[in-house]
Amino acid sequence: MHELIDSLFMRELGNPVLREKRDSAILNIGGKKIAFTTDSYVVNPIFFPGGDIGSLAVHGTVNDLSVCGAKPLFISLGLIIEEGLEKSVLEKITRSIRNAAGRAGVKVVTGDTKVVEKGSCDKIFINTSGIGEIYYPGLSAGKIKPGDSIILSGTIGEHAISVLSKREGISFSSKIKSDSAPLNGLIAKALKASDRVKFMRDPTRGGVATTLNEMAAERKFGIAIDEKRLPVTAGVKAGCELLGFDPLYLACEGRCLIIAAKEDEKKIISAIRRDPLGKNARIIGHTTKDNRGKVYMNTISGGKRIVGMLTGEELPRIC
Amino acid sequence: MHELIDSLFMRELGNPVLREKRDSAILNIGGKKIAFTTDSYVVNPIFFPGGDIGSLAVHGTVNDLSVCGAKPLFISLGLIIEEGLEKSVLEKITRSIRNAAGRAGVKVVTGDTKVVEKGSCDKIFINTSGIGEIYYPGLSAGKIKPGDSIILSGTIGEHAISVLSKREGISFSSKIKSDSAPLNGLIAKALKASDRVKFMRDPTRGGVATTLNEMAAERKFGIAIDEKRLPVTAGVKAGCELLGFDPLYLACEGRCLIIAAKEDEKKIISAIRRDPLGKNARIIGHTTKDNRGKVYMNTISGGKRIVGMLTGEELPRIC
Repeated sequence: MHELIDSLFMRELGNPVLREKRDSAILNIGGKKIAFTTDSYVVNPIFFPGGDIGSLAVHGTVNDLSVCGAKPLFISLGLIIEEGLEKSVLEKITRSIRNAAGRAGVKVVTGDTKVVEKGSCDKIFINTSGIGEIYYPGLSAGKIKPGDSIILSGTIGEHAISVLSKREGISFSSKIKSDSAPLNGLIAKALKASDRVKFMRDPTRGGVATTLNEMAAERKFGIAIDEKRLPVTAGVKAGCELLGFDPLYLACEGRCLIIAAKEDEKKIISAIRRDPLGKNARIIGHTTKDNRGKVYMNTISGGKRIVGMLTGEELPRIC
Repeated sequence: MHELIDSLFMRELGNPVLREKRDSAILNIGGKKIAFTTDSYVVNPIFFPGGDIGSLAVHGTVNDLSVCGAKPLFISLGLIIEEGLEKSVLEKITRSIRNAAGRAGVKVVTGDTKVVEKGSCDKIFINTSGIGEIYYPGLSAGKIKPGDSIILSGTIGEHAISVLSKREGISFSSKIKSDSAPLNGLIAKALKASDRVKFMRDPTRGGVATTLNEMAAERKFGIAIDEKRLPVTAGVKAGCELLGFDPLYLACEGRCLIIAAKEDEKKIISAIRRDPLGKNARIIGHTTKDNRGKVYMNTISGGKRIVGMLTGEELPRIC
């Protein structure tokens, strides 16, 4: 269904900015470069280990701005609330939004609330749109060349496993917390350390596998990642086995993929590791001359397998 | 409930920009003045005479930018879609968004789609956020002085009556069409004609009565409007009688209230009337020294009555 909608929108609404399909649109307003992004959040359950729909809505939009080389400044807040939602729940979510915005250094400057009758929406949906000022222009998948390094800022899969295990009522011996977090600080450190960062994305919908495939698609390079370098915690591994998922396809909400010139990989890694969110940062692979447009994985067993796009529908209501 | 939420947000998220409660936030980004606004649309039914949820979502955001003296440039589109929504419905809405954006001269530059399971949302909800460039700075309710003119750009009540009559399955002898329309062209004409426009609002939630009350609240002026000058069509009058509404409290989606110095009222009226959306524009009243903070109406029968805020809940899912 998502593909259907995407192609419909591109056909009917398409313009050069929309067609770039960036995490944020890069706009030129009177000589200023501005990033602009939007996301709606429908996560179910609305509270999960490590976060809730409020903090998630702030982090998601902050991160979409950050990976485009923008300093997130302002966000909007559009709420759709089911009649009868407890006041205490709304207060908890609002405080969570306040704390998340405070941590990320963004201001909620405009908002809107709609209340719909019981049964017309599931508790609460939140849209956040955000505006940032570009301070590191020129990030573009078009700049990626064979031999570039692929850096991942931390472990993967926590967000999806946290939401799913809460939803399914499954508890693991180790409680897995969502990785939901604002990446603007970590990204600023990476971009200060190197002027050879080429492109960034946060691996949300469809996880690292889908995000890397989208980067490589129709480009003149391939991607090779090393299974043994993938940072997956024992808890996430156990959760994936139990629930039948591959962590490579699970949405993260506080991680980013950074593609940079190999010469600068060490500088970037050491800069990111100084950030509390980046202590597990590592190089997970590199771009290649061969296998153009494709993503391959060198497996622990010594084999090589293709890593495809997510097939079928993504996990529903994970964000 | 709306008041409860408003006060919660102001307490928890309040900052000087949010507290101004403008239709758009006015932001300063690197020396540029930018307007930024958001609205979620949950109108039911999604198609109504004169419009649909798609065109409404574009017009609403274009108008919130326009009344702040901004030229609307870019909008975002956040869709929440109920699983199973017919493809043809989605296509119709998308084309309507395209046409509305084209007419208003704005580009959809970023978007997001979430699909939720059947029963978790009612067909489709749309959030649009918008960015505009301020070209007429300084509009502020604080500039309004006693003796200023209150100009209304057209007839009132069509949007609400159109949606309600479709929803209730009531048909009038004269089919009433929503007034949903983009106001940026009309407003640009008014602002070109006069440099003494002080403030504008589009009377959506709670209609003209509520919007005027919000303008006057805690200010050093009162507002007097003349019942005989209020532009209400015979169809809307009939609809209001049948459904038990006062047109003064009904949401418009293509009208604006302009407060300007009396010296310029004629220039503004004649400029607006040159716009197809402004042919019924007129002065409906003026600001007064007395009755500070209040809105009064001089009735057709020669009396004078107070026009209060909307009491109780506004009409649900009208936009």
